[in-house]
Amino acid sequence: MRVVVPFGGRSPKTRLAPFLDADERRDFSLAMLRDVLTAIERAGGDPVVLADAPVDVEVPVTVDDRPLTDAVNDELGGDEPVAVVMADLALATPETLERLFETAGDVVAAPGLGGGTNALVVRHPDFSVDYHGASIADHRTIADDTGASFVEFDSMRLAVDIDEPSDLVEVLLHGQERSREWLAENGVRLDRGDGRVGVVRERR
Amino acid sequence: MRVVVPFGGRSPKTRLAPFLDADERRDFSLAMLRDVLTAIERAGGDPVVLADAPVDVEVPVTVDDRPLTDAVNDELGGDEPVAVVMADLALATPETLERLFETAGDVVAAPGLGGGTNALVVRHPDFSVDYHGASIADHRTIADDTGASFVEFDSMRLAVDIDEPSDLVEVLLHGQERSREWLAENGVRLDRGDGRVGVVRERR
Repeated sequence: MRVVVPFGGRSPKTRLAPFLDADERRDFSLAMLRDVLTAIERAGGDPVVLADAPVDVEVPVTVDDRPLTDAVNDELGGDEPVAVVMADLALATPETLERLFETAGDVVAAPGLGGGTNALVVRHPDFSVDYHGASIADHRTIADDTGASFVEFDSMRLAVDIDEPSDLVEVLLHGQERSREWLAENGVRLDRGDGRVGVVRERR
Repeated sequence: MRVVVPFGGRSPKTRLAPFLDADERRDFSLAMLRDVLTAIERAGGDPVVLADAPVDVEVPVTVDDRPLTDAVNDELGGDEPVAVVMADLALATPETLERLFETAGDVVAAPGLGGGTNALVVRHPDFSVDYHGASIADHRTIADDTGASFVEFDSMRLAVDIDEPSDLVEVLLHGQERSREWLAENGVRLDRGDGRVGVVRERR
């Protein structure tokens, strides 16, 4: 299956600014992108990166600097199934993506924390995306309106996109190799207190 | 399957204090507990509540005011499989719990955000729990040390326990009936801005 991986490479992950400076955010976002591409390939998918600026990866890259929704919609509408998997899903394993790709439905959608849509499989030519706001609810409505069946895909590994410092906990606990190692090498550590575990950074 | 549902009823959900006062937190935590019990029953499980104080529900209640780890370990060690499902999993559906109960493994564990273990199925008499800190990692180690197979269960609906105001977004978007309605009736609404959706409360 063709798997489109949108990647905002110009000023990635600004909400991680309390932990990482601009160069570090770019490095870390590339580590996550490469982990996602590897997981897609191991799950049997054919990844292509859809980026707003050129990016150095081993798979085809389409550069399109329009808003995410417009750029992704240009990839949909054909006869073949297409998946859309976000580039910051550092917890995504080949097993989870294989389960996603194999789940039946005209539209199969993995909700993200906070109402986003972190991964999609689209098998209906009339479905289109709208990533603004609580997109998971909108995608259900769009599917209903176009007569496409909508199946929710229940996965923590696809629900956690890495946007905020608290998300780094999940990368340290459950992340794939490059992302987890990048954090470890850059001094980001678990902070085990009471309740949910946090992160701290040891600057060197 | 016997399903133990630990419930801290004395001073529940203190981290929701910015949104809900003590009486409201108790009401809301009961709504979540009842949603979880209903989902377990619809999934074919036999729920029992393990509470630190008496609680008014339609299923058997064992009152045990020791720490969570000790109280749960008293329920383990027998020949029959036992599941442990937290009472604040307001997103848990019968479908997800059925998938959990049917997943093979001596120990099947659903990680929570922040390193917790939100749901477990235990089919090995020597396994014991330790809920302190990043328990998901500890539970894997304990399983390894006792020769029990350990299987991670990947589910957003079991990963999101409701502890903090930002978690209420997920209840409004994906929660089961009583929990979602309680929030709606008490003025908690989605706040749709850019990025992840938040919550606001309209006080009346």
